[in-house]
Amino acid sequence: MPSPITPRSADFPRWYQDVIGRAELADNGPVRGTMVIRPWAWAVWERIQADLDARIKAAGVENAYFPLFIPEADLRREAEHVEGFSPELAVVTHGGGEELAEPVVVRPTSETIINRFMSKWIQSHRDLPLLLNQWANVVRWELRPRLFLRTTEFLWQEGHTAHATEADARRFALGILNDVYRATMEETMAIPVLRGHKTARERFAGAIRTWTCEGMMGDGKALQMGTSHELGQNFARAFDTTYATETGALDYVWQTSWGASSRLIGALIMTHGDDAGLRLPPALAPQQVVVLVVRADEGVERAASSLAGELRRQGVRVRVDDRVDMGFGRRSVDWELKGVPVRLEVGPRDLAAGHVTLVRRDRGTKEAVAVGAAAGAATAALQDAQMALFDSALAEQRRRTEAVSDVASALEAAESGFATIAWSALADGGEAELAAAGVTVRCLQAGNGGLASADDEPGMVAVVGRAY
Amino acid sequence: MPSPITPRSADFPRWYQDVIGRAELADNGPVRGTMVIRPWAWAVWERIQADLDARIKAAGVENAYFPLFIPEADLRREAEHVEGFSPELAVVTHGGGEELAEPVVVRPTSETIINRFMSKWIQSHRDLPLLLNQWANVVRWELRPRLFLRTTEFLWQEGHTAHATEADARRFALGILNDVYRATMEETMAIPVLRGHKTARERFAGAIRTWTCEGMMGDGKALQMGTSHELGQNFARAFDTTYATETGALDYVWQTSWGASSRLIGALIMTHGDDAGLRLPPALAPQQVVVLVVRADEGVERAASSLAGELRRQGVRVRVDDRVDMGFGRRSVDWELKGVPVRLEVGPRDLAAGHVTLVRRDRGTKEAVAVGAAAGAATAALQDAQMALFDSALAEQRRRTEAVSDVASALEAAESGFATIAWSALADGGEAELAAAGVTVRCLQAGNGGLASADDEPGMVAVVGRAY
Repeated sequence: MPSPITPRSADFPRWYQDVIGRAELADNGPVRGTMVIRPWAWAVWERIQADLDARIKAAGVENAYFPLFIPEADLRREAEHVEGFSPELAVVTHGGGEELAEPVVVRPTSETIINRFMSKWIQSHRDLPLLLNQWANVVRWELRPRLFLRTTEFLWQEGHTAHATEADARRFALGILNDVYRATMEETMAIPVLRGHKTARERFAGAIRTWTCEGMMGDGKALQMGTSHELGQNFARAFDTTYATETGALDYVWQTSWGASSRLIGALIMTHGDDAGLRLPPALAPQQVVVLVVRADEGVERAASSLAGELRRQGVRVRVDDRVDMGFGRRSVDWELKGVPVRLEVGPRDLAAGHVTLVRRDRGTKEAVAVGAAAGAATAALQDAQMALFDSALAEQRRRTEAVSDVASALEAAESGFATIAWSALADGGEAELAAAGVTVRCLQAGNGGLASADDEPGMVAVVGRAY
Repeated sequence: MPSPITPRSADFPRWYQDVIGRAELADNGPVRGTMVIRPWAWAVWERIQADLDARIKAAGVENAYFPLFIPEADLRREAEHVEGFSPELAVVTHGGGEELAEPVVVRPTSETIINRFMSKWIQSHRDLPLLLNQWANVVRWELRPRLFLRTTEFLWQEGHTAHATEADARRFALGILNDVYRATMEETMAIPVLRGHKTARERFAGAIRTWTCEGMMGDGKALQMGTSHELGQNFARAFDTTYATETGALDYVWQTSWGASSRLIGALIMTHGDDAGLRLPPALAPQQVVVLVVRADEGVERAASSLAGELRRQGVRVRVDDRVDMGFGRRSVDWELKGVPVRLEVGPRDLAAGHVTLVRRDRGTKEAVAVGAAAGAATAALQDAQMALFDSALAEQRRRTEAVSDVASALEAAESGFATIAWSALADGGEAELAAAGVTVRCLQAGNGGLASADDEPGMVAVVGRAY
C-alpha cells in the first residue's frame, strides 16, 4: 500500500500537494504555471460551474463568448487597469509563421474587449441593463504558481454588465455577491464566507469598489473566492460606452464585472480536506455513494447492484466498486482519498447477518445498517453530511477569528486565523504596517458584520489575515 | 424597418453574413480572424454542447482539461503532425514582462500535450482503455477567416483515447462517428450527414485513418462537421506511451482523437437558413415558442401569459413578447430572423373570435387555432418541425448529388452539389486533377454507401465536392 499522505497539521502545503496527487486531481503542465485538471476534479468543477451558471442565468444574465486575443493597444486605454495587469501578460508576437505587425495579448480579463462591443451594442436606455457573462480561460503569468490557487492559465466565469445608473450597478454587483457567489459557496460548496468590500489598496485595477467573498482555509489563511466589482464609469469613459437617456442626452454607462474561478476547487480541498484526503460535499461529489463489494461472491454482487439501483432511482449518483482483484483496503483508502461522502460496504459475512456497513466520510463513522434500510440511511447521511461540513467549517472559522484592538495583536492573531479590528485603528499607516508583515485586510464590513454602504462609513471593521 | 437581407440565391456568402449580423449571432473580433459569439448563438451552442457531452459521457469518456500553452519542442515530436500545423501556429514569446527562454505555442490541438500525460498515467493493460475529452479553445492562424467556419480561435471538444489493440481503437473511433457525431448532427441539429473516411491527402496530420461526417450546405458545398481519427501508434511512439500487456511485455498503445467545433453553428445557419433568416431545429432553439402580444390589451396579455404558462408546464421553452411599444411587424421579423420555430400571435380581434394565429417558421404557414387548442398545436408543430427540417435537408442533399463516371462530369456536378464517382476512376491522378480545380474528395464509402473497412477495399465510391 502506498505511503500515507503528510498530516495536515505537520505541513499544510505538502499535505495539499499530497491530496492533489493521490486523489488524482491535477498535475503540473510542462509550461511553468500551467495545470492539467484530471477527471475527478473536473467532474467537481462541472458541478460548481452548473450551480454558478444556473444562478447567473436566474439573475437575468446571458452567456456569450469574447476572443482570447486582445490588441495590446486596447488594454492601455484604461490607465489603472493596464498598470495592474502589465506585469502578468503573455504576449503573442508571431502568428501563421510571421511576426505580427501589432503584438496581441492573451486576455488576463476581458473588460477592455467587452467594452469595445458594448459601446457598439448600446445606443439607448432601452438597451440597458446589458447583462453578459462568459466561461473562459484567462492567462496571468505566475512566478510562484500553486495548483488551482495560482496558475498562469486558469478557468473562470467573468460577468460584465452595463447600467443606466450607479445605484442600479451597485444593486446588481451586490446581487451577484449575495445570490450567486455566497449562495454557491455556502449552500453548494458548504464553505462559509465573509463578505465585505476591499480597501483601495486591494481593489481590482480599474474598479471604484470591489466586493469580495473570503473563505478561511484549514490552516487559518484566507482565500479570496469571488469578487464583484463596481467599475463606475472608468471603462465607459475609456471606450466611449454611452447611451441616450430618456431625455435624449448622452451619458456614460455604469458598469460591473465579477468573476469566480477554478481556484474554488482549491478552496474545497483546503476547507474540507483532512488527513485521509478530500471530503466532498454531497452536492458536488461526482459519486455520492460508492457501494463496495468486499470480495467476490454472487450474493454480495447481487445485493450491491440492487442497492445501487435503489439509490439511483432516488436520484443519487452511485458507483458499484466490484474490482475484487484489487484489495478491499486499497479501494477503501482510494475512495476516502477522493472524498466520496458515503461508502456502503457489502461483505458475505455482514450480508448473511442481514446488514451492510455504512461509512460516512465527513465524520469517519461506521455503522451496521439492515440491508432493507441501507438506501434510506445513505440518502439521510448525504443530507446530513452537506450541512455538517458547513457547520464544522463555520465553527472553525469562528474559533479562529479574534477581535483585537491594535496592530500588534492583529499580527499575532493572523498567525493562526483572522483578526477583526476597527478600521479606524488601521487608518494611520496600520494597513501598510500589516502588509509589510504579509498580512492584508481581506475585507471591510459594517460594524454589525453586514456590508458597509460607503468607503468612509463610520464604525467599519476590517477582517485581516494572511492570504493565498 | 431595416432593409431585407440579401436573398440566398443571389449571393450566398453575403446572405450568410447578413443572417449572422441581423440575427445578432456573431461579430468579428479586433484581432484578425477572432470572433465574438453573441448570446443567441451562444445559447444554441450550449445546447449543441450539452447534447454532444451527454453522448460522449454515454460512451464512457471522462472530461478533463489540459493547458492552453504547449512547449514548441513537444509539437515537433511527431513529424507529420508538426508539418501539418506549423504554418498555423500562434507563438507566445513574452510572459510576465520578459522574453521567454523557450517560446510556447497556443494549442492548435492537444495530441502532443495529452500524450505527455498519458505516457505517465498508463502503466498496464488494466489502465486501458483510457478515454478522455476536453472542451477547449484552440488557435490556428487563419488567413481567410469566416465567422464560425474558419476562425483563428475556435471552440471545440477534443477527445483523446488510448487502447490496447488496433481493433479496439477502430471500434471506438467508429462509435464516436456514429453514436456521437452522426446522432447529434442528424437527430438534434436535423442535418443529414454523409459518413466515410478521408483519402491520404485529406487525412489529419499524424493519423492513419480519418473518419468524417460531411454535411451539404444550402449552396451545395460541403462542410466537414466532425472527424474521428485513428492515430495508430504514431503519437505513442513519439511520446513513448507504452503499457504492460497481460504477458508482461511492453507495447505501444493504439490511439484515437476526435473533434467537433463551433463551426457547427455555421452548419446550422447554412443548412436550414432561408431568405427570412435562421430556421432553428426545435431541439436547439433557445426559445421554441414566442407568444406575441399583438398590441396592448389586458385580455390579450392575460391570454398570452396563460398560454405561455401552459406551454412551460409541458417543458417547452417559451417567451412572451409584450414589447408593445415596438411595432408588431418589426418584432415578427426579428423572431423570424432569429429562427424561433413557432410563433403564437395573440391579438384582440382574433381573441374575441376565440382563436390565436400559429406561425411555423420552417414552412412559413399561418393558421388560426382555437385558444384552448393552441398549446397542443404548438407542441405538435415543434415535433413535426424537427423532422421536417431534417427531411427537407435530406431531400435537398439527394437532389443535388449526382452519380458520375469521369472527372469532367464530377467537376461539373460539383458546381452545384456533390458527385459520387468510383474511387478507382480517380486513381490515376484524378484526385489531384479535382484538387487543382478546388474540388476535393469529401469521403470514401463502400460501394453500398456504408463505411469501407480498408483503404484499398474494392468497389469504393468517392463523394466529391467543393468545401468550406
